Amino acid sequence: MYYAKPLAKLVGELEKLPGIGPKSAQRLAFHILRSSEEESRRLVDAIADVKTHIKMCPVCFNFTDKDTCDICRDPKRDRSILCVVAEPRDLVAMEKTNEYKGLYHVLGGVISPMDGVGPEMLKIRELLARFKQDEIKEVIIATNPTIEGDATAMYLADLLKKTFGTDIKVSRIAHGMPVGGDLDYADQATLIQALEWRREM
Amino acid sequence: MYYAKPLAKLVGELEKLPGIGPKSAQRLAFHILRSSEEESRRLVDAIADVKTHIKMCPVCFNFTDKDTCDICRDPKRDRSILCVVAEPRDLVAMEKTNEYKGLYHVLGGVISPMDGVGPEMLKIRELLARFKQDEIKEVIIATNPTIEGDATAMYLADLLKKTFGTDIKVSRIAHGMPVGGDLDYADQATLIQALEWRREM
Repeated sequence: MYYAKPLAKLVGELEKLPGIGPKSAQRLAFHILRSSEEESRRLVDAIADVKTHIKMCPVCFNFTDKDTCDICRDPKRDRSILCVVAEPRDLVAMEKTNEYKGLYHVLGGVISPMDGVGPEMLKIRELLARFKQDEIKEVIIATNPTIEGDATAMYLADLLKKTFGTDIKVSRIAHGMPVGGDLDYADQATLIQALEWRREM
Repeated sequence: MYYAKPLAKLVGELEKLPGIGPKSAQRLAFHILRSSEEESRRLVDAIADVKTHIKMCPVCFNFTDKDTCDICRDPKRDRSILCVVAEPRDLVAMEKTNEYKGLYHVLGGVISPMDGVGPEMLKIRELLARFKQDEIKEVIIATNPTIEGDATAMYLADLLKKTFGTDIKVSRIAHGMPVGGDLDYADQATLIQALEWRREM
């Protein structure tokens, strides 16, 4: 027994968090132990608040603390473009570009037969329903450039074309070399995609 | 604004923790958000419990939830040897070896003029006081092999010899090549120490 019991319990709880190994868990526990009463109170409150107040936006399925999320309610957003992402964190990554001004739809995952995730488990029915109310003209599919992400994109593109024909433009974010990348260090799959997605200049 | 407010607050609090950058903070926050009510409750309780129940052992200054820590009270411990460490985490590292069976003394830091830490700010007076009650015969100084750690070790060794003469043996943990290390990758300072601490075989 290296730690006093409450300390061992905290280290154990922290170790369950993603990306936190035994060493980091110990460091975090010692930090919390040394932090002021107010600091640890703020952390505890923040965790509790998130669990109490955050829910899913019923329109786009992003996290929100309101009835409808800020993006869906924002009148300055371009309501003719819809960006489809797998997870809320992907939406955050998109927002950080400060480039995209349309709306979003969070699928809640990707189709993955290996993990037992079929299309019916994603928010696809809800996606189709949005076309009835909104004046959507283009759908940008921004799932990850992975096997599952690409398969989900293909499935969605097919489904959208089958349902709405040519009324709606469906696009996929580009695959290629990351900016600042090095050809010499790029993996084969990325280079093959970069060739395939090449554009005349 | 990428996150709903309570989520942004949690990400902010998590970012203040050591070794947690913006990316990890986001990942942890999303994990907590997805975790069950019971899981997050356990984490919150563990943090609160640690702040309420953990204090310092008045003998060795390790963390404990009892009046005196488990190690100090353990009758199976060899009370003739005292291992001096800088921080509770160093004590944990020592305990994990399962080799050391003596007692400990946690200084609460090392002498560091750069950070304004003088000897009077460490538990050195309390260390000297322990020799009155306990039958200590050897002190192993296990501060880190850094400039401050070595300087603190020198200071303590001098002080102990001046105060108790040759009644008490004072030793320092060895400096040298880490087990499984590679000479080719070892830094110069380590190699110099490994040479200096060499032992006839």
